[in-house]
Amino acid sequence: MRNDCPQPVPPAGSQPGPGGASFHQMWRDLLPLGRHPATHGYRRFAWTGVDGDCRAWFEEQAAARGLRYEVDRNGNQWAWLGDPAAGDAVVTGSHLDSVPDGGAFDGPLGVVSAFAALDELRGRDARFTRSLGIVNFGDEEGARFGLACVGSRLTAGQLTREQAHRLTDGDGVTLPRAMEAAGYDPDAIGPDPERLARIGAFVELHVEQGRALDLSGDRVGIASAIWPHGRWRFDFRGEANHAGTTRLADRRDPMLSYAETVLAARREAELAGAVATFGKIAVEPNGVNAIPSLVRGWLDSRAADQDSLDAVVADVEKAAGEYAAAHGVDLAVVRESFTPVVEFDHALRDELARILGTDTGLTVPVLGTGAGHDAGILSGSVPTAMLFVRNPTGVSHSPAESATEDDCVAGVLALADVLEGLACR
Amino acid sequence: MRNDCPQPVPPAGSQPGPGGASFHQMWRDLLPLGRHPATHGYRRFAWTGVDGDCRAWFEEQAAARGLRYEVDRNGNQWAWLGDPAAGDAVVTGSHLDSVPDGGAFDGPLGVVSAFAALDELRGRDARFTRSLGIVNFGDEEGARFGLACVGSRLTAGQLTREQAHRLTDGDGVTLPRAMEAAGYDPDAIGPDPERLARIGAFVELHVEQGRALDLSGDRVGIASAIWPHGRWRFDFRGEANHAGTTRLADRRDPMLSYAETVLAARREAELAGAVATFGKIAVEPNGVNAIPSLVRGWLDSRAADQDSLDAVVADVEKAAGEYAAAHGVDLAVVRESFTPVVEFDHALRDELARILGTDTGLTVPVLGTGAGHDAGILSGSVPTAMLFVRNPTGVSHSPAESATEDDCVAGVLALADVLEGLACR
Repeated sequence: MRNDCPQPVPPAGSQPGPGGASFHQMWRDLLPLGRHPATHGYRRFAWTGVDGDCRAWFEEQAAARGLRYEVDRNGNQWAWLGDPAAGDAVVTGSHLDSVPDGGAFDGPLGVVSAFAALDELRGRDARFTRSLGIVNFGDEEGARFGLACVGSRLTAGQLTREQAHRLTDGDGVTLPRAMEAAGYDPDAIGPDPERLARIGAFVELHVEQGRALDLSGDRVGIASAIWPHGRWRFDFRGEANHAGTTRLADRRDPMLSYAETVLAARREAELAGAVATFGKIAVEPNGVNAIPSLVRGWLDSRAADQDSLDAVVADVEKAAGEYAAAHGVDLAVVRESFTPVVEFDHALRDELARILGTDTGLTVPVLGTGAGHDAGILSGSVPTAMLFVRNPTGVSHSPAESATEDDCVAGVLALADVLEGLACR
Repeated sequence: MRNDCPQPVPPAGSQPGPGGASFHQMWRDLLPLGRHPATHGYRRFAWTGVDGDCRAWFEEQAAARGLRYEVDRNGNQWAWLGDPAAGDAVVTGSHLDSVPDGGAFDGPLGVVSAFAALDELRGRDARFTRSLGIVNFGDEEGARFGLACVGSRLTAGQLTREQAHRLTDGDGVTLPRAMEAAGYDPDAIGPDPERLARIGAFVELHVEQGRALDLSGDRVGIASAIWPHGRWRFDFRGEANHAGTTRLADRRDPMLSYAETVLAARREAELAGAVATFGKIAVEPNGVNAIPSLVRGWLDSRAADQDSLDAVVADVEKAAGEYAAAHGVDLAVVRESFTPVVEFDHALRDELARILGTDTGLTVPVLGTGAGHDAGILSGSVPTAMLFVRNPTGVSHSPAESATEDDCVAGVLALADVLEGLACR
């Protein structure tokens, strides 16, 4: 842990406007929820008690601002200024859940900045000509059920109710049981085209998950595209046996072919200029003195284009099959999720650049990203854009993820400018 | 799973004597306890409810035979024929706990055979000149707290109360809390020299954990020595980060050096004629889209002699250090347990060979083993010997572990002969 305090550093002597002040207050209130005392990382997993605390916080923020609060059939939370049914609404927001021991910013920065940008605009006496929605999408990280962006995928019709009902967490709890336990109706989930039809533009603000803005010296950037990416589960099945008494020649040890595959994935990604990661593993029986019967490893891989990604995954799969055969181990590979390349709406992206450029007189950088987002899921249905806020370490999905309060407030003001430009003119 | 029925196969048309009949009955009663319905493996972990069921079974067997039942300060169970305080007792037994998804025979075969051998001797109207003890040692496998042979180690003074009190299971429950929850007093645990002083000879019967008897065509063998063996924990600490957005060059991914070390351990063990296994792993945060901050792997290694084992572990540790350094990862290696070579008492071993050879007219094979046992722990304090029963697959620590009922009954009769030879003449 390089940073055990993910609170943004307040700028010396700054006088925040209404947006900055309300950001500071909301951030402080949200910070303790789901933070592990030992790791200082966040454990805000979908449909748990901590997730419920975060959702209660969202509802309170909506109420405190006199916004119309609603939860959709998929458990996503919405707060509305103006009539959502009027259509052509401008919507902003992100998610409040986290990866295991994640940072404070990934997700919450976008939700807090949404409310703060509204406060900023009210401070400016902005007059809205379009309805404004603020959204918290459920289960974005997929930390509990293994599939990312469940809330937005369901809404956009990219995940069926039947598929979602088969999702199961590490303790064997299914998604429907988890939703039920949290007080939601799992039989109601599914595509929600009426709700999508309300949205004229969706803008998601997010902490950058890399160092591009740090290297360019900019506080805020605009997204160009999300790399195609996916998750593949590799099941290596061997034979459990005694670690002390089984001769090496008699073993069918799946840990060996797993290890060889981890190294192959790194090599193939390097050759292709892509990324590939084995970050999650499950071993059976996972005993010190037992050769495993099963080693299950998950490959996360992403590349700038589809062909490169396909080549990396095919090469890793081929190598893994050869390693497994050499050890008498069976291999099964399952693609658990896949998201093709997302090019964000060019007109909306150019409009954001124009709005922000007019205010600052600067060219705002436009960046690609390897991370998936609800904005990527929605981009197939509605015009979508993203703003990134500088992350000086570039670290993400870790308690060391960071952003200065100056940069966070710059993000709030940029989002306020964008919302004003889109919804008030 | 190659064998989903670990019940010994009854021999066609055999007429078991009193020992064989009571073996059959006891085996049938014990078989369902702690057996997982899906894997057919056993999950009998120390101080759990299932462990309590097995212990209740032991107490019932003692009562059914009019034996004096007692539990010692370390939670080991004893059943006595004759006065234990008389000293120079002959003791036999093993353990009832299991590894995760272990087989039916490892441990229980020795306890069931002990009661069955007593029944056999009573059927023969044997007259005991020494007291006979039957023992179930607690927590032999170390599946829950990571240290094997806790019950016998404590009794023999090879584990202090303070060390035992620091043992913690995967859910953060300490050994003292677990013992308390099972109704035992964790403050009473510690060395028990008075109890050891009662024992003149300890004989443990165990299913073979290899194929030596299968290859030699013998049903029963005698142990010569236990290889020196130990467990080493390798903590690879890197930096958690986003699997999609962190450039390969910016990563400090501990999974890579773990994978390289797994392969190095196999190579070094092959070169030394030893065994080395990474069968247990814990990853943080263990998320599909997060580069791990920590990969913790446990090495189990064993060799025929101390020098070979030292060389294997030193070479693996050195290689791991180099791999870690190359990836910017920190490595810490902790030796969690170690048991030096155990040469079983030569006089007792020769006495067993004489007794069994006289009855059968055959030379009973004498074998070394890579597995640790309570008999190995006790061998530092009292004359100790082991009998092995043939395991046709050689598989151990798995539901595929097996023995035929013919061979199990042969083991009961051999044990009865040994007890008669030691305690009745």
